[in-house]
Amino acid sequence: MRLELITIGDELLLGYTIDTNAAFLARELAAVGVSLVRRATVGDSAGDIEAAVRDALDRTGAVITTGGLGPTSDDMTRQSIAAVFARELVPDESRWETLRALWKERGRGEIPVTNRSQVMIPRGAHVLENRHGTAPGIVLEDDDGRWCAMLPGVPREMRGMVGDALLPYVIRKLGDTHHVVRSRTLRTTSIAESKLAEVLGPLAGGMDGVSLAYLPGQDGVDLRVTVRDVGAADAERLLSEAMTALRDRVGRYAYGEDRDDLAATVLDLCKGSGLHVAVAESCTGGLLGARLTAIPGSSAVVNGGVIAYSNAVKTDMLGVPTELIERHGAVSEQVAVAMASGARARVGSAIGVGITGVAGPDGGTAEKPVGLVWIAVDVDGTVQARGPRFIGDRTEIRYRATQAALDMMRRLLADRAAAATAGVQGTAVA
Amino acid sequence: MRLELITIGDELLLGYTIDTNAAFLARELAAVGVSLVRRATVGDSAGDIEAAVRDALDRTGAVITTGGLGPTSDDMTRQSIAAVFARELVPDESRWETLRALWKERGRGEIPVTNRSQVMIPRGAHVLENRHGTAPGIVLEDDDGRWCAMLPGVPREMRGMVGDALLPYVIRKLGDTHHVVRSRTLRTTSIAESKLAEVLGPLAGGMDGVSLAYLPGQDGVDLRVTVRDVGAADAERLLSEAMTALRDRVGRYAYGEDRDDLAATVLDLCKGSGLHVAVAESCTGGLLGARLTAIPGSSAVVNGGVIAYSNAVKTDMLGVPTELIERHGAVSEQVAVAMASGARARVGSAIGVGITGVAGPDGGTAEKPVGLVWIAVDVDGTVQARGPRFIGDRTEIRYRATQAALDMMRRLLADRAAAATAGVQGTAVA
Repeated sequence: MRLELITIGDELLLGYTIDTNAAFLARELAAVGVSLVRRATVGDSAGDIEAAVRDALDRTGAVITTGGLGPTSDDMTRQSIAAVFARELVPDESRWETLRALWKERGRGEIPVTNRSQVMIPRGAHVLENRHGTAPGIVLEDDDGRWCAMLPGVPREMRGMVGDALLPYVIRKLGDTHHVVRSRTLRTTSIAESKLAEVLGPLAGGMDGVSLAYLPGQDGVDLRVTVRDVGAADAERLLSEAMTALRDRVGRYAYGEDRDDLAATVLDLCKGSGLHVAVAESCTGGLLGARLTAIPGSSAVVNGGVIAYSNAVKTDMLGVPTELIERHGAVSEQVAVAMASGARARVGSAIGVGITGVAGPDGGTAEKPVGLVWIAVDVDGTVQARGPRFIGDRTEIRYRATQAALDMMRRLLADRAAAATAGVQGTAVA
Repeated sequence: MRLELITIGDELLLGYTIDTNAAFLARELAAVGVSLVRRATVGDSAGDIEAAVRDALDRTGAVITTGGLGPTSDDMTRQSIAAVFARELVPDESRWETLRALWKERGRGEIPVTNRSQVMIPRGAHVLENRHGTAPGIVLEDDDGRWCAMLPGVPREMRGMVGDALLPYVIRKLGDTHHVVRSRTLRTTSIAESKLAEVLGPLAGGMDGVSLAYLPGQDGVDLRVTVRDVGAADAERLLSEAMTALRDRVGRYAYGEDRDDLAATVLDLCKGSGLHVAVAESCTGGLLGARLTAIPGSSAVVNGGVIAYSNAVKTDMLGVPTELIERHGAVSEQVAVAMASGARARVGSAIGVGITGVAGPDGGTAEKPVGLVWIAVDVDGTVQARGPRFIGDRTEIRYRATQAALDMMRRLLADRAAAATAGVQGTAVA
């Protein structure tokens, strides 16, 4: 099945809203084996919507749209696509009664008559129920089996309907004979793209039947393997073999798969070792704490920490000696180490992390340029420090500093766990 | 001028990369008065690229593409679009020598011959120089004045070239006669969309010649006014009148315009009043600190603070009495106030902010449901506290809590500044 997606809305076309629906739908469809072959965006204009849907139906016979199903006058999708399929719009009175009752129940009084457009359903349509909002989705299908599914544009509603209603419909249309496009991703960090290709050696260009893409981003470089046009079982086997081969080559640079977040990986390692975390952040100003505590359940591991933006806070609340700051500067290995150890001592945690750097755009010097960040991790008194220089703007430098700090934690905790296992084995042998 | 945009790449089509280039280009073009009328995305396939560009040229005669200009075998844009314009690709030997020299200079040795594709330029093309990367942009134009501009897909390179080379080209093509689409945005927060429409009264549906859009998001509801198809001077006047009218109605709910960040607004108010800030964050875990310190120059205002995720940290580092936590619970007005005041006292700042809440997904009770967040702001001993209940997932609840905290700070500081001005005036009169 080849399928086209049309996202509808002036907001998207004018660039005021970034189109995240398109990426979400593409991934969800790929996971059930459907390739999106083209995607278009048009504004809230009946003529443009009709033209785009007709073109797409002519090419592939299978179209999904998002947006333009709301109650206001700029919502044109329902009537435009009904016109493409030459269907009349008919009010669904039972839906109207339900909507009216819901409106009252929520204390909003009598429902405005403008909302009636939301219960106008093209004749012969298949309705996709919306558990997250009031505008239902609609599927129209013609006698030749060509179809168009309309979803709302609000991401929360659209996402719910994809799993609840759209994918089951698409899977029914596919029957049993379909081939798949499937991907997996190995996430790496602390290594440049060119160096990664070197490390991969003979695998750098992909493997037999498996294509390989390098996706550099703020988290590091993701390696994505993709297989196409094979059965589901073969796809799984090929991907799983490819991931194992990549992992063998990449080694410690890999920290997870697919949408794994390094912060979650680190929290899992902390939980496994029973160690708690405290942070001491200068240039990142709380961003490491925010990333760690963004993970549900983080309170089992994270005690808290100090945002030590000013030197006075470094001294007063983390016990960093004033002389240390005077002698080496606030951005220095020595101060990062004192911050990490201070966080441990003051907060009362086994693990302390200190970050101090020049995030820019101002404040850089020849000796300490913008992008230089000192990071120290103290695990039970074992301290490691690094002073990488990150490329990018203020936002990128700060984020990359938190990623590097998390990666140092990951490696130290993994080593510790390995040593503990070796120790246990040693004891058993002895 | 009507223009179409085609973004090219399997990454975009498969949904692994979210298409931010499209939104960026749409905004930049709108600012010089060009409407994007349709946008499409195709994969790295010569046939699909050719078909999409031909269709778009037939509709509007003006096309911009991004992506597919790199050196590897999946980069198909150059040759596909050269085929549409029936142009031969010719190597630019002086570019090749420059590229070869650059390669050596960076210590990368002899340049691989695959990179030669980057200097293959269609005959008669206009080249857009790329100061941020190695692949130049290319513009092709036919005898009827129909044109296609190709830009690289890497956002950093693309963005640089838009200002350097694309917009000057587009403006030349427009001549002097063009009309504009121009927008401005009034940013509001702490008010629901439906309530905002009420407050706007007769302006709720837009004004004469000016359309109004409601854009709800994590920051609040943005109100965007747009004018189309008038001259530049009229556009500015209409927008400026509309913004004034909106501001009069919206009053204190408005905190800024266009891309203003509430954190930056608050920092400016602090700077104006000479007050420093300390934060005490429980459920937001550093996110408020991270937002404040994301703004360049924030070190003049932000001292730092405490990430008080565990109750022990609240007690030990902020001086929140254990009895208070036991009696009212960690998520309570009393604890939020004690955190704010504790942050002030311990960090030594005039302003203290305390945030404690249930971010979910677990930990909610009937009395204290997921989404309940207590926020206290203490300015020089004047304390205000609020306990809103936010809707959304963990990420949304945490972000909205920081936004609400910033808005409380903004209002308190604005009131203080107004009172000080009144005081000064009073003195002057007396």
